Amino acid sequence: MREPRSPRRLTTLAATVTAMLATLGAAHGQALKDVQVADAPLVLKAQGSFFVGGEKVEQTQVETGGLGPGGHVTVNQMYVRYMVPQAGAGNVPVVMVHGATLTGKSWETTPDGRMGWDEYFVRKGHPVYVPDQVGRGRSGFNQAPFNDARAGSVPPASLPNWLRFSDEVVWPNFRFGSKPDAPYADSQFPVGAIDELSKQGVPDVSFGGLPTPNPTFKALSDLAVQLKGAVLMGHSQAGPFPLAAALLDPGVAKGLVLVEPGRCPTNYTDEQIKTLAAIPVLAIFGDHRDTATGISTRPSWQLSFESCQQLVDRLKAAGGQAEMLDPAARGIPGNSHMIMQDKNHLQIADLILKWIDERVGTRPAGKK
Amino acid sequence: MREPRSPRRLTTLAATVTAMLATLGAAHGQALKDVQVADAPLVLKAQGSFFVGGEKVEQTQVETGGLGPGGHVTVNQMYVRYMVPQAGAGNVPVVMVHGATLTGKSWETTPDGRMGWDEYFVRKGHPVYVPDQVGRGRSGFNQAPFNDARAGSVPPASLPNWLRFSDEVVWPNFRFGSKPDAPYADSQFPVGAIDELSKQGVPDVSFGGLPTPNPTFKALSDLAVQLKGAVLMGHSQAGPFPLAAALLDPGVAKGLVLVEPGRCPTNYTDEQIKTLAAIPVLAIFGDHRDTATGISTRPSWQLSFESCQQLVDRLKAAGGQAEMLDPAARGIPGNSHMIMQDKNHLQIADLILKWIDERVGTRPAGKK
Repeated sequence: MREPRSPRRLTTLAATVTAMLATLGAAHGQALKDVQVADAPLVLKAQGSFFVGGEKVEQTQVETGGLGPGGHVTVNQMYVRYMVPQAGAGNVPVVMVHGATLTGKSWETTPDGRMGWDEYFVRKGHPVYVPDQVGRGRSGFNQAPFNDARAGSVPPASLPNWLRFSDEVVWPNFRFGSKPDAPYADSQFPVGAIDELSKQGVPDVSFGGLPTPNPTFKALSDLAVQLKGAVLMGHSQAGPFPLAAALLDPGVAKGLVLVEPGRCPTNYTDEQIKTLAAIPVLAIFGDHRDTATGISTRPSWQLSFESCQQLVDRLKAAGGQAEMLDPAARGIPGNSHMIMQDKNHLQIADLILKWIDERVGTRPAGKK
Repeated sequence: MREPRSPRRLTTLAATVTAMLATLGAAHGQALKDVQVADAPLVLKAQGSFFVGGEKVEQTQVETGGLGPGGHVTVNQMYVRYMVPQAGAGNVPVVMVHGATLTGKSWETTPDGRMGWDEYFVRKGHPVYVPDQVGRGRSGFNQAPFNDARAGSVPPASLPNWLRFSDEVVWPNFRFGSKPDAPYADSQFPVGAIDELSKQGVPDVSFGGLPTPNPTFKALSDLAVQLKGAVLMGHSQAGPFPLAAALLDPGVAKGLVLVEPGRCPTNYTDEQIKTLAAIPVLAIFGDHRDTATGISTRPSWQLSFESCQQLVDRLKAAGGQAEMLDPAARGIPGNSHMIMQDKNHLQIADLILKWIDERVGTRPAGKK
């Protein structure tokens, strides 16, 4: 690999690290030390992992990397890790889907070492299922085009694009501050641990490099079928995924929680709206939504908020139980785009858990 | 992405699926249904995840995918998931590192839904830490060269190679049978669930696409330091990684378990041997090692076995507590390369746990 090991790069690295240590304190690279332990043990009926979906494709020896003969491999499968609480194993499961350039790690231990929403929801009595989106993390991706380009059999311009957010983009785009190293005074994000968030970033091939529609939609729907009903929660890029999954099989989508969705679709047909209106929907947004993101396709998150407000209004007009959750408007300011990692993340989780209790109930419909 | 959606590919897929269903039964794609639940709850003092290592590099807008400005991203970090048992939190931790084209999923729920070694070792009183190797899974990789090649600024021939094993390679290479769909009569691998193993495969850039030495070595050593001592266990490609990590900081490597290592180094200096001889070493191999793998760089696993026998002999000659564990020679035939997923995987785990008890003890040295 063309590793950036040149003196220029090293100088840049050293300067960056020095600047960050000066700004943020010296806790970096000590993530295990900073991990906190809960007062009470976590008692699980079960935990583990499995896959949903996937399809066999045939690939050449070059496409599989040349060490052995080509043949069949599986692509487009979705990895899912789960925890089922001993108390509450029959309660409605919650599926948590991460956003762009991230993995299921988003929902686990926070960058500064606090309990993630995955464990918190389990402790509150819900089985929790955390996928890696198709094409990322432990779900893998299809490497064939890259090896073909390397061998000269396809033009490199035909390769899919890999997306990753630089730290400099993350500051305004995730709304920790309007620019790098300048957190909002009321920011709820643990900015001292921002380097640990940076480590959560992985290359993301889902913008143009996956089949259409994104296989994650069907995998989420299939997962909800296998669970006999689930609350589907998606963050950021995956914010609208629960809607897409619900349209594939509305009967198993017991509630849809859209956490800081990148957008809510505003072009649903009346029939689609009628279908979705039968399912409780909650859209949650943090504060400082007017921040200029520096990303041309979405200049501000206020636009995302407004698209969801439009959808909620349509669903309500169709008789649906849809609502916006805007903590800042309730006197809880400073939440960021990474609201599940914010310092008050359990306060926000409690609002969602209350909504699930009230709108979805605790038991899946099939077991009532 | 150049998705294999052509009619030819679809026909191949359909034919393959039909053939496999005929061969293996109809359990495929039903992984959740097949997942088993233990009789007793799992009581954890703590669980979660964190990162070890990583470095900042500066990348251009093209290299980060073009959606926002370029800047700094983190590469070469290692994701680690952990579980600490309520009973045994002070016992020596075990770090389990997966092999080539795989992720930490190797140690989790088996392809046919049985408890993974990760949970079993926790239930036996050991904190367990499961990384994704640098460059894979939730550890991510450096996407910059691929986006540069796409943009035409570097030649595609300079791209790193992605390795993945086809199902056809896996059968003889992982020693389920001498050829596809022909399992050994005594095979311990749950071959009916081989499609679920196929889903565990991810592209692997570590053969030529990572810095030298592989950053996972240092990350493992640093993890053992943070844990104040650990048993380091590696599988296949990662079989020799515990040796490499131990040489970086022998004091924190309390025991080295090499599970079906691809090779054991035979060129250590006498000084390195002296260092390693102070640490208990166990090398474990399954059965049917004479199977022709179809891979030119390692025609049979018997060669791997012999390289480890050589190392063990050198360590013993230097006064070390090193040994080979060959279950077939003890009357336990049929184990495969994926020994941690074999039907008798808990029997094998018990042999390792007994070895840890006898050679390493239960408590880390720092806490005795």
